[in-house]
Amino acid sequence: MQAYTTLAATFARLGALEDASGILGWDTQTQMPDGASEARGEQLAVLKVLAHEILTDPRTGERLAAAEAEGELGEWERANLQEMRRAYAHAAAVPGDLVAAASKAATRCEMVWRDARRDSDFARLRPHLEEVLRLQRLVGEAKGTALGLDSYDALLDGYDPGMRRARIDPLFAELRAVLPDLVVAVRERQAAEAPPLPLPGPFPVGIQREIGLRLMRAVGFDFERGRLDVSLHPFCGGATDDVRITTRYDEASATGALMGVLHETGHALYEQGRPAAWRHQPVGQARGMSLHESQSLLVEMQACRSREFCTFLAPVLREAFGGEGPAWEARNLHRLYTRVEPGFIRVDADEVTYPAHILLRYRLETAMIAGDLAVADLPGAFNEGMKELLGLTVPDDRRGCLQDIHWPGGSFGYFPTYTLGAIAAAQLFAAATSRHPGIRPALAEGDFSQLRGWLRENVHARGSLLETDDLLTAATGRPLDTADFLNHLRRRYLGEA
Amino acid sequence: MQAYTTLAATFARLGALEDASGILGWDTQTQMPDGASEARGEQLAVLKVLAHEILTDPRTGERLAAAEAEGELGEWERANLQEMRRAYAHAAAVPGDLVAAASKAATRCEMVWRDARRDSDFARLRPHLEEVLRLQRLVGEAKGTALGLDSYDALLDGYDPGMRRARIDPLFAELRAVLPDLVVAVRERQAAEAPPLPLPGPFPVGIQREIGLRLMRAVGFDFERGRLDVSLHPFCGGATDDVRITTRYDEASATGALMGVLHETGHALYEQGRPAAWRHQPVGQARGMSLHESQSLLVEMQACRSREFCTFLAPVLREAFGGEGPAWEARNLHRLYTRVEPGFIRVDADEVTYPAHILLRYRLETAMIAGDLAVADLPGAFNEGMKELLGLTVPDDRRGCLQDIHWPGGSFGYFPTYTLGAIAAAQLFAAATSRHPGIRPALAEGDFSQLRGWLRENVHARGSLLETDDLLTAATGRPLDTADFLNHLRRRYLGEA
Repeated sequence: MQAYTTLAATFARLGALEDASGILGWDTQTQMPDGASEARGEQLAVLKVLAHEILTDPRTGERLAAAEAEGELGEWERANLQEMRRAYAHAAAVPGDLVAAASKAATRCEMVWRDARRDSDFARLRPHLEEVLRLQRLVGEAKGTALGLDSYDALLDGYDPGMRRARIDPLFAELRAVLPDLVVAVRERQAAEAPPLPLPGPFPVGIQREIGLRLMRAVGFDFERGRLDVSLHPFCGGATDDVRITTRYDEASATGALMGVLHETGHALYEQGRPAAWRHQPVGQARGMSLHESQSLLVEMQACRSREFCTFLAPVLREAFGGEGPAWEARNLHRLYTRVEPGFIRVDADEVTYPAHILLRYRLETAMIAGDLAVADLPGAFNEGMKELLGLTVPDDRRGCLQDIHWPGGSFGYFPTYTLGAIAAAQLFAAATSRHPGIRPALAEGDFSQLRGWLRENVHARGSLLETDDLLTAATGRPLDTADFLNHLRRRYLGEA
Repeated sequence: MQAYTTLAATFARLGALEDASGILGWDTQTQMPDGASEARGEQLAVLKVLAHEILTDPRTGERLAAAEAEGELGEWERANLQEMRRAYAHAAAVPGDLVAAASKAATRCEMVWRDARRDSDFARLRPHLEEVLRLQRLVGEAKGTALGLDSYDALLDGYDPGMRRARIDPLFAELRAVLPDLVVAVRERQAAEAPPLPLPGPFPVGIQREIGLRLMRAVGFDFERGRLDVSLHPFCGGATDDVRITTRYDEASATGALMGVLHETGHALYEQGRPAAWRHQPVGQARGMSLHESQSLLVEMQACRSREFCTFLAPVLREAFGGEGPAWEARNLHRLYTRVEPGFIRVDADEVTYPAHILLRYRLETAMIAGDLAVADLPGAFNEGMKELLGLTVPDDRRGCLQDIHWPGGSFGYFPTYTLGAIAAAQLFAAATSRHPGIRPALAEGDFSQLRGWLRENVHARGSLLETDDLLTAATGRPLDTADFLNHLRRRYLGEA
């Protein structure tokens, strides 16, 4: 297995480069002084180009073929080889100058986007986004040709290996058929009761941070191998054995930072729970963005917005902030955390209306990649979709098609993973709680150990050993479907048994 | 100039890799969770090996020869090419497996050293240090053969390009001849007066930090392109346009953090003042460690421990810490900051006794590299030297030959740059204040602008355009000599005119 061993060394080196980029990326968002952004851009670009050069070295292709012929590999080695092949195929498909051009265009477009969003000025973004789209379509074509996929599936495969439109379309069609009526029913039900009482602030940042750290510990975050910091846009990043999550604080409301920390902690558990012996190899990485999002949503939405967890959380918050009265009771907290209200902003959406935001973006980006929707027509199509799917009239592009960084940043094929993750989260949580009925009651004590143990074994420690549907089948008995997600929504929001 | 242009691109890439390592190095000391150290070690090793591979690529050598033959280059390009040649010669001289072995041995030895120092257990360190020395002697030989130098000069050249033992020996001999008597005279003089009053604490960390930031601004640190943080061992690091200095705080005394911040700010000014157009190229880097140390010591020792600066600083400290009485007066502060007392620990030494620590280490490390001193005999030789040079009996190896990280970390040839820097600092400060008599009085107002302007023009903005002695000649009228340093000591500590 000499070819395999050589490949393993090459991919360990690539992993270290990716780790270095991960720390630099974290630093960019949390520490870097403004004047360093140009130099930082060059550092990240050099690391990226070097990794691309190493990965697409013709010898990598030769060694892959040789290793595949060696045929004396164990289960993990075989899966590792398959992930190496996938990474190589994605990288080798795209000429180096296209990689560089697409990366540069995205960086430039992202910078313009920041101002364009602030000023709600789509016209300023348009030429830059057109260029980004043009190049991403070329990337999609190139990858599609190499992988035997259509362009969109080829891009999607870069975020969620093995995921295809043919798999997504029926799942999203089910949501499309059910959710609009479900939103109406939930809102009628919530309108029939007095609204939940807002928690009276202010909420000092230092206390919010202490609570965040305490909850991270409770969920199972390992501070020997990770940190919590502050950034404008919360994320989970960092490197191997060094998982760094961020949040942002608002003294007027503690909910955003609190739920944000729990969400990122779900991502972090996945990263910290990857199989230790394989953590520098492709097979030791998280399976894909859908499963990654399933872990954050499982912790935040399934576990921490549950009635049980609110029982644990209410006295924690009450004591920490010196609260008094009915607003601080578990029942009110749960009603606050499960309030449903259609809104313009995806990242602020509740779990019932969130899929509509994704269905719209998925529809628009598949059309853009297919060449059926021009950038010039994006605002109109976006606003039309918001009207159709959520009944909302978008007042300006800032609260419309300019709100997300994904397209300006060149990420086409990423959006569906949010809702696929929500579906997977429900399915995994249902399986876990069905296997271990003690999980839910334990949440009322702030005890995540059994849930965490199940996730470790059934998701985290598997790394990329199995394809997403195979992992779900092994963990839940069947591939991804919407049943548990819709049941969860009906149970939590309509009180159905 | 096609070969030159290609080289410039290669060295820009190397610069970006070094920058990435700089940020990761900063992160290791200031942010990284403990559990990440192994993975971080791998990241740094991969960046180092990649840089070595790029630098020693045979095409680099060919292009250097071609560029040197092109002969249509300007002054800066020619100097840049010379620095490229130097970097290539150093890297190409040492086989890759020796680089890796030396680096690994040093990493291992450093780790053992931390415990060995704590326990004052030289025997535990000995085999590891022997291995480090063995490999550094091989590195020195390999570089020496390639550069036409003896081993020690070849190692020294890696820290201070162009510096040689033949240049250092007479300078250090002058210090050896003068300083012991000078220390005695200073101590007699100080003993004849009542000792300075200690500043009564405690000194809250938050206030110390605020003062540090204020003084950094006064000296001229650009916070758009840098930061101040905390680490166990203070340093100046980071990357291009992103200079990061650190300090450590002690609530019982503010002097260490204060003077430490000013010292590192001197280093930072050099980094932030490098020639902008060349900041990604070898010629745009700082000239060498001696000049680098000259900048930190010029700010700390020459400028900020001066009588004038104490006039500015005294009311700042008094107000910030709510101090009252004679201890807080400028005259007392100046006496505190210029107290002379031989001690065991190099990093705690005053500027009069500091050179003795360096003379000793220089004597020992040249002997070790020459093969004339075995590691087994190091403690005895160290203690004998401390007795001879400072009249002190070393009580244990923790306060003797185990105190510094340099040798365990594989740095032989670094120590002399501390004292060469002190000599250069005095020479540069004398030239600056002679050219601009307003510099000293301005320090009493906390105004560094004129001093900074002179340093920018005469040192920082020259990058590596000139060799150290040529830079000093251009700035001060003559190459490095001890006259201004000894005059400075006599004037400050003996009151001679």
